[in-house]
Amino acid sequence: MKVAIYGYGNLGRGVEAAVNCADDMELVGIFTRRAPETVKSVLGTKVFSADDILNFKDKVDVLIICGGSATDLPTMTPALAKNFNVVDSFDTHARIGEHFEKVDAAAKEGKKVAVISVGWDPGMFSIARIYSYCIMPNGKSNTFWGRGVSQGHSDAIRRIDGVLDARQYTVPIEETLNKVRNGDTTDFTARQMHKRECYVVAKEGADKDKIAKEIKEMPNYFADYDTSVTFISEEEMKKNHASLPHGGFVIRTGSTGNGDNRHTIEYSLKLDSNPEFTGSVLVAFARAAVKLNNKGEAGCKTAFDIAPAELSPLTADELRHTML
Amino acid sequence: MKVAIYGYGNLGRGVEAAVNCADDMELVGIFTRRAPETVKSVLGTKVFSADDILNFKDKVDVLIICGGSATDLPTMTPALAKNFNVVDSFDTHARIGEHFEKVDAAAKEGKKVAVISVGWDPGMFSIARIYSYCIMPNGKSNTFWGRGVSQGHSDAIRRIDGVLDARQYTVPIEETLNKVRNGDTTDFTARQMHKRECYVVAKEGADKDKIAKEIKEMPNYFADYDTSVTFISEEEMKKNHASLPHGGFVIRTGSTGNGDNRHTIEYSLKLDSNPEFTGSVLVAFARAAVKLNNKGEAGCKTAFDIAPAELSPLTADELRHTML
Repeated sequence: MKVAIYGYGNLGRGVEAAVNCADDMELVGIFTRRAPETVKSVLGTKVFSADDILNFKDKVDVLIICGGSATDLPTMTPALAKNFNVVDSFDTHARIGEHFEKVDAAAKEGKKVAVISVGWDPGMFSIARIYSYCIMPNGKSNTFWGRGVSQGHSDAIRRIDGVLDARQYTVPIEETLNKVRNGDTTDFTARQMHKRECYVVAKEGADKDKIAKEIKEMPNYFADYDTSVTFISEEEMKKNHASLPHGGFVIRTGSTGNGDNRHTIEYSLKLDSNPEFTGSVLVAFARAAVKLNNKGEAGCKTAFDIAPAELSPLTADELRHTML
Repeated sequence: MKVAIYGYGNLGRGVEAAVNCADDMELVGIFTRRAPETVKSVLGTKVFSADDILNFKDKVDVLIICGGSATDLPTMTPALAKNFNVVDSFDTHARIGEHFEKVDAAAKEGKKVAVISVGWDPGMFSIARIYSYCIMPNGKSNTFWGRGVSQGHSDAIRRIDGVLDARQYTVPIEETLNKVRNGDTTDFTARQMHKRECYVVAKEGADKDKIAKEIKEMPNYFADYDTSVTFISEEEMKKNHASLPHGGFVIRTGSTGNGDNRHTIEYSLKLDSNPEFTGSVLVAFARAAVKLNNKGEAGCKTAFDIAPAELSPLTADELRHTML
């Protein structure tokens, strides 16, 4: 299976590492919109210009698109799905419907399979939500994120005047997590479910009180949460906050029968590296895209539309013997 | 969707309760090998003789077979799959390959869909194992069961001379569970992973020491575990051990990239009623069997071969908007 990576940031590097671990895959190249000679691949993969991608139409079985959801993927994925089987990690929940329609039309036109919105949320957490809902319709699902670094929230802090660098950790509130686990079906507020811890490097002479106030009062991002702001040095940021851990919990509680019997279904992830794990999920779904296209399928799919066996390099018989 | 139940014990009652909660399903009847007039349905479902099942060939969209794996399902499922879409919970792991082949041939002959080995293990736990393996190939999976009642182990105790009734709880060893969660990849022994708690009602005048010794030394069932035996009265058995709770944990730990970044994927169930929860899983896969057969598919499938969306009564668009 010949795989290529389109876009080479943290996620692209995670995908590169994951393809390298897959015995049934070969990495053809990395495609970048930057000048290729300025991009150094971690594992020595060849780097090409994104402009040359169509020359690889017959040399690539699946293209893993590692762009951002805000501006890259809405145009990239539909454009590329006309000529390649593709996978992306589009994660703007509110716009998935729109993205799906555009990608579906393009993939059908090109007779390709496009898998969108895979990673861990959307992705593995979506899978946890759909299965637990289907097998226990009488119940309530809750998703908690963290403890982990939110890139979006970190970026929001960095845009504040006087801020040199910032890292924001989303932290689930343990007490609420345990209430949910034990069947409490209250509609908890944002503040009851998560808190936000911010580590900030201020520019020399910056007004730290003003920065902290601006963070804590920022609408949508921080105002609805208990937010702590800790100022640290550049050295401490490099030493203690360089990695990108994340994770979370999908918990569904509910009942069967006349309601007397209660059940808890829980799926959780604890990840040292968000981009490496997300990259690994993308690679598994890239395999599925190729397998489905080889069976004659075309169009856009999400994790909901793909049978688990399609993600595996093992045969159906091997899977039944080893994992069922 | 017209559903029927074939076999009416604990599991059959669990399926009856679950179908009753599904708005898109109608329960046509319960089929029993006993005299139908001797079987009282919990929810007032009509009871028919198993001998009449072929008269319902065009009145039933899917048949949920609630027999035992030891002697019932190996013959029942292939026989019924020729004429009906069927679902079973065949759970003898070592014989699934053989069962699959027989059911596949029958279902293909009848142009029906047969889903075998669904419940929570095999079933939901198998799904947890395959996804976590596919997205993190460098790692190790462990499954823990309990705390919960094992019917097989309870039955084994009941067969001992002098035993009136018995209930056996399988209990995961918390210390090992936490080691596994934290990435320990030791091949733990059976004794290190689970212990067995037995509650026994002895017949009057029975030799309790002899019974306890016989239990603890029973090969395969108890000899390889730390086993406790507690003698209780019939009243206490009825009062404190009437329900059938179960559950467990599927944990995969591993790494991505150069191995520096470690991750833990965990799926767990905590169930008040094993048969009601298993019944609910069977009902969701029964829906999938009908949907797939309506699309023209035929043959035997396991949980690995079925996309999550097929289990749901919602449309693909509704699922993307509410659960992705």
